Parts: sequence; C-alpha cells; structure tokens
Amino acid sequence: MNPLLSVVGISILSYFGSVYMIPRASESFISIGLFGRDRLKVSDQKIPESLGTVVGIIYIFAVTILTPFTLRVDALVAYLSGILSIQSMVMLGFADDLFDLRWRHKFFLPAIASIPLLLVYYVEHGVTTIVVPYYGPIDLGWLYYIYMASLAIFATNCINIYAGVNGLEVGQSIVVVCSVIANDLLYLFHDAFIGSLQPDTVRAHTISLFFVVPLLSVSLALIKFNWFPAKIFVGDAYCYFAGMVLAVAGITGHFSKTMLSLIMPQIINFLYSFPQLLKIVPCPRHRMPLMKDGLLYPSRADITDSPGSILVIMKVLKKLKLIEIYQTELSSTDSKHEIDQIENDSTDVDATKATKNAASKTNPTKKIEISNMTVITLVLVHKGPITEEELTRTLIKIQVICCVMALLARHVLAKLIFPNDNI
Amino acid sequence: MNPLLSVVGISILSYFGSVYMIPRASESFISIGLFGRDRLKVSDQKIPESLGTVVGIIYIFAVTILTPFTLRVDALVAYLSGILSIQSMVMLGFADDLFDLRWRHKFFLPAIASIPLLLVYYVEHGVTTIVVPYYGPIDLGWLYYIYMASLAIFATNCINIYAGVNGLEVGQSIVVVCSVIANDLLYLFHDAFIGSLQPDTVRAHTISLFFVVPLLSVSLALIKFNWFPAKIFVGDAYCYFAGMVLAVAGITGHFSKTMLSLIMPQIINFLYSFPQLLKIVPCPRHRMPLMKDGLLYPSRADITDSPGSILVIMKVLKKLKLIEIYQTELSSTDSKHEIDQIENDSTDVDATKATKNAASKTNPTKKIEISNMTVITLVLVHKGPITEEELTRTLIKIQVICCVMALLARHVLAKLIFPNDNI
Repeated sequence: MNPLLSVVGISILSYFGSVYMIPRASESFISIGLFGRDRLKVSDQKIPESLGTVVGIIYIFAVTILTPFTLRVDALVAYLSGILSIQSMVMLGFADDLFDLRWRHKFFLPAIASIPLLLVYYVEHGVTTIVVPYYGPIDLGWLYYIYMASLAIFATNCINIYAGVNGLEVGQSIVVVCSVIANDLLYLFHDAFIGSLQPDTVRAHTISLFFVVPLLSVSLALIKFNWFPAKIFVGDAYCYFAGMVLAVAGITGHFSKTMLSLIMPQIINFLYSFPQLLKIVPCPRHRMPLMKDGLLYPSRADITDSPGSILVIMKVLKKLKLIEIYQTELSSTDSKHEIDQIENDSTDVDATKATKNAASKTNPTKKIEISNMTVITLVLVHKGPITEEELTRTLIKIQVICCVMALLARHVLAKLIFPNDNI
Repeated sequence: MNPLLSVVGISILSYFGSVYMIPRASESFISIGLFGRDRLKVSDQKIPESLGTVVGIIYIFAVTILTPFTLRVDALVAYLSGILSIQSMVMLGFADDLFDLRWRHKFFLPAIASIPLLLVYYVEHGVTTIVVPYYGPIDLGWLYYIYMASLAIFATNCINIYAGVNGLEVGQSIVVVCSVIANDLLYLFHDAFIGSLQPDTVRAHTISLFFVVPLLSVSLALIKFNWFPAKIFVGDAYCYFAGMVLAVAGITGHFSKTMLSLIMPQIINFLYSFPQLLKIVPCPRHRMPLMKDGLLYPSRADITDSPGSILVIMKVLKKLKLIEIYQTELSSTDSKHEIDQIENDSTDVDATKATKNAASKTNPTKKIEISNMTVITLVLVHKGPITEEELTRTLIKIQVICCVMALLARHVLAKLIFPNDNI
C-alpha cells in the first residue's frame, strides 16, 4: 500500500477518534479539577482544560500504527526517535497543566523532550551542515545540536505564548501544518514531475508528512470544540505537543529554516513580548484582551513608575504604530473609576505598587499605561474593539498571509539565493 | 566505554535522582488530590499515591540517555521501540491512577502500550519460533504476536493484583529484576568463559540489562519510601511500569519463558484469584487483610448464599490447606457482633445481601465464609496473625525461593530438556 494513503487513512480515523473522545474525556478532566474559567466570557462555567493531552495520546497511537510504512522510505530509526520525543513532550505538557509548573522550569521542558531525537540524530551520524547563501555548506558540529534543541524550545514556547483567545493556539497550528504539507508535496511532486527525484528528498518529505498529517487531523477535531465560544481549553499540553511535532518534522525532514519561516508571526510575537517577559517593561499577570459588552479592547501595562528611558522608547514605538500609550489624570476620580471597570482584574497590583499609588494620590499626577506588547493586543489597538471571534479570524488571516509569503520565498526566491539548493 | 559500565553509572544517578524527587513530588501529588489512606494503619493521614509515575519518568530519562551505547550491540531499533512501549505504559498507568479507570478497560492497557514493540518486532522480522521440549522449534507465526501481547498483559496485571501491603509491589519486582540480572550475567559470563560467546546471546542479554538495571535502581529508591510504614504509595502506575519493563526485557532478550518462570508466585496468585475475579466465588470490594491491634488477619468472603457446589469445592480446597472456612451461628448476637468488629468495612454488603441477611435473621442459620483467594490471605491463614512488615518479608522470601528455583531449573535442568538450547 502507498505510504501516503496509509497516512491519510489513519489520520481520518484519528479525527473521528478525537471527536468521539474529547467530550467524554472532558467530564473526567473536570472531575479531577482540570478546568478553568473563560475570562473573556460573561458566564462563569467550568471549562475542561488540557484536552490537548487527549488528542496527543490519540496522535501517538496513530503515528505508532504507521511505523511499518516508514520502512519504504528507510526512516524507521528517525521516526521512532521522533515519536519518543513527541510522547515525552505530551507527558511533560500534561504534567505542566496538572501541576502548574513555574515558567523558568517549563521553558526548558522541550529541550528535555528533544533528547531522544538529538541522541538518535547523533548515533545515526545525521548531517550537521547548514547552507549559507553565497558561501555554501558549513559544518556546525556540536553547535548543530544546540541549534536543534533551540528549535524545539522555540517552536513550542512560541506557540504557547501566542495564545489567549478561543481557537488561536489550534488555528495557528493548523495553518502552519497545512503550509508544511504544501511544502512537502511541492518537493515530492515537483521533483517527480521534472524527473529528478532524489531518494533523500523523498525520505525527508515523506517522513515529515507522517508526522504532520495526523497532527492536522487531531487539530481539526480539537478546533471544533475550542472555536469561539470554546467548550474546552487545549492547555499547554497542546501547544507543547504541536510545537514539538513541528520541530521533529523540521529536524527529521531537514527543513528547519523553512519551518522557522512558517512560524514568523509566533517569532515576531515572541521578540515583541521579550521586554515584558524579561520584566524590562512592567508585565501584568495576564495580558489577555479586556472584554466589555462582548467586544475586546487592548489590555494595558502601567509604566507610570518605570524609568524615563522606557517612556522615550515607548513614544518612538508609538510613532512606529507598534504600541498605544494611555494617559489618565489620577486626580479625577471619575475617569480613574472608569478605567478600573475596564481593567477588571487583569493587571496585577502588588503591595508595593498599591502603596506607591496611594502615595501618588496625595500628589495628583498622570497615570501612564501602554498597550501590552503582544501581537494580539497590537491587532486590537489598530482594529479594536472587535469580537473575540473576529480577533481570532484576523490573527489566523495574518498567519495565512505570512505562510504563503514564506512558501513563495522558499520555492521561487530561494533558487536565486541558494543556486546549489539540495533541500 | 563499556556499555555495562554506562548502565551501572546512569542507574546510580537514577537512584539518587529518584530519592531526591520522590518527597518533592509527593507534596504536589497530594495538592492535586492524588492521595489515599492506608487501610492497615490506625492513623488516617493522607499518603501520596502514584509515585511510580515519578520514578517511571526518571527511568525513561535514564534509558534514553543510554541509547548511544546500544549501538555496540546493534540493537538500536529494538531498544527504541521498547522505550516507546514502556513510556506508553507509564502514561496509561498514571491515567489509571488519576481517573480510576474501570477494571475491564485497564486490563487491556498493557496490550495497547505493547503495540510499538510488537510493530517493530514485526518490521524487523523478529523470530516467531519457540522451542518445544523433545520436539524442536515451532514457528508460531502471527500467534507469536498474540503470545507477546499476552505476556505484556500478564506481567503487568499479575504484579498489579499481587499487592495490598506496604512494600510488596516494589519488593517482588526487585527480586524478579535481580533474578533477571543474574540470568543475563550467567549467560554473558558463562559463555565468555567457555569461549562460545554468540553475538545473538550478547545482544539479547546486554539489551535486557539496559532495561532492567535502571528499573532496579529506581525501585530501590521507591522502596525506601514505600516500606512499612509506607510514606508513599506506588500506584497502579508502578505495577504497570515494572511489569512492562519485564515484558519488554523478556521479549527483546528472547527469554520470555524464563521471565514467566520468574513471576511464578504472581501467576499462581492470579490463577488462585481467578474464581473471585470472575465472580464465580463472591468477591468483596477489597481483599486486603484485616488489621486488629497491629496484627493482620485473613480477610473473608461470604459464601452463605453461594450454590452448594461451591461449598463442596471449598471443602476440598480446605483439605488441601488452600483455604480456610469460617462458620458462625447467626442466632448468637454476641459472636456476630465480634465478627463485625473484625471485619470492619472490608466486605461489601450490597442491598440485596442485606435484605437476605435480615430475612435469615428471622430463621437463625449459619453464616459461612472463606478466606479470600489470594496468596497474601493464604499466608495469613497459615502464619497469621502477624505484623504487616512480617507478612511482606514472608511474601518476598517466597518470591526469592521461587526465583532461585526457576534459575536453577533454567541453567541446570534445561540442558537436559532442551538438548539444542539456543537461548
């Protein structure tokens, strides 16, 4: 049987298996306390959390069943080590949802999960060479392993922090996965058409399809339940799981640069968030949008007490339309009250700040806030207020545009930059 | 570096890693509701449950790190698929502890977890031949896969039901693992000594050591905390995990018959329990011993309402000293009261039976009970009342005797039965 037909068949079964299991597992998850509340909804009902674990297990089952078909493309060992890494990631992601690990611990979980993949890459004497434009191949040696581990950390955490509105985690993954599939098929069919099909190309892109097509099917099942208004939450488990599948596909398929180009919105969001993640700019506990009467508004961070240099940088960013600045007279009780209403409990006012605010009330002054530094908030600054569903749609459209551009760049422009392109 | 030295080194690290992690994870486990009470203790404190998951994850980490060393014995693929099966089992075992799955579901979890191993065995064209005494090899074909899946189901569930007193699950596993290690070393050193070392023998028994030595080290760490009086419970997760490691070692090392001979007390306990598990003989919800003043007594099952044939069989079993029968005059209020006190809440009196008992009280008659059909209860029938620690020690001594006899049979007698023994 054609390996690709088997992949499609098993993926269809995984889709229906997931649709069957998700509502059933939801009840069990709520019963053991794995649930949350949707902060962007009026209702306060319990929403089961970490359903990504369920589709993760179905996915592992699906790719395991596909093992015999990898023999055709001589990729059994790479495939098994990829499954091991993904399974480790599903476990660690579930542990994170269950125990609410600290940020500094969970950031490195993907590196731990990628160990099986890296070790097997090592014992199989995988290529550690990258192709530099206008120069040619450079052997990175052990630095290549750092590069691969970083890719795993990056892909997983990028997806994990580009989240907060119903359907976004799964929606973005679906777009990236579809782009990876398109990329694989372009290689397989283009090369087959012009008759220069290299065994290495077939092997790399077939194995990539083995990993990503089942991810597409379980993600499609998941988004049925996670789309606005969400009946389930996917959890960190899903973000880690999906990110790891992408990293594994990129590494075993030798197209890690293309993979990075396909998650550009996530990378931009990560870099844009960096000043807040590192607390250079104040960061409230939650940076989700603010909801009022069913519409979403940009959430804010209070930079009143930040050094002057931060304010200068923020003013430059505002000129570049990369941020919004809000100034409020603290002497006016009315306007302050109104802001508080919108802000709800989204900003963390810790004890020190509360004292400082109390102090500044006696000397009435201005409260200076910026829109939080996430792509989600930035879209709201320019297009808001909009509904949550409209926001998710907009963000997914941005992802589609970025992915199409990346694929065009890879398949049209790259021939010019890498004249001796090998994949 | 010598592969066996690496195994020992990583195993020592895993031991200390487990000793470090177990108390720390205990608090987190209690906080998410993963705890139980020790029914055989007076104190009612919360005891963290499912700590087998923690050592399971440390074990997976350890065997993954050892991957490069399997190249020396050309067993990478078998090794990776073994890890995948064990990791699946750790996940499913944890899910069982977390969600308290139904018995009919969890019985087959090991078969699901063994799929990676079986599939890779299939694609690698593994031997499906067994050697029959005085006949020679027989190719079982696909039946061999059923045999391997059954071995996984059997090894895991046998360990899981031979449990109930502090330290028994881990203690029995440690004895079996030590026997497997002894068996592996006997092959490796004996053959090396007489100079007839076959590559297949080295490969099979080295890979077995890769799987079981780290299991020994994490089990030794676990028993420190699980020995009487237990500060932690190991959970179904540990039983499944340890059973799966044994099954994987037996299958990849091609000594599944020897493996079965090493878990003879577990198999006997399983067969002995069978009439109660299938509800042919009434089975209370818990069959643990009864505790009174720090001593353990055999727990009982009420067979008053069972058909006469059951009573006849039980009388035969009593003659064979395989069971105890207790008869109580129900008319005497005093003696009835005393029994109730000992029984505590250990027997499940469902609504129907309660009505029947009420009816029989008007026609005073005899209450007939048997000691529950488990090896643990049987030891108490003959040696009880004894303390919980003494009971565990006795059961572990039985395991040691059985394992030594099995190894003697394998290495002394087997040469006579299998004249052309190949391993």
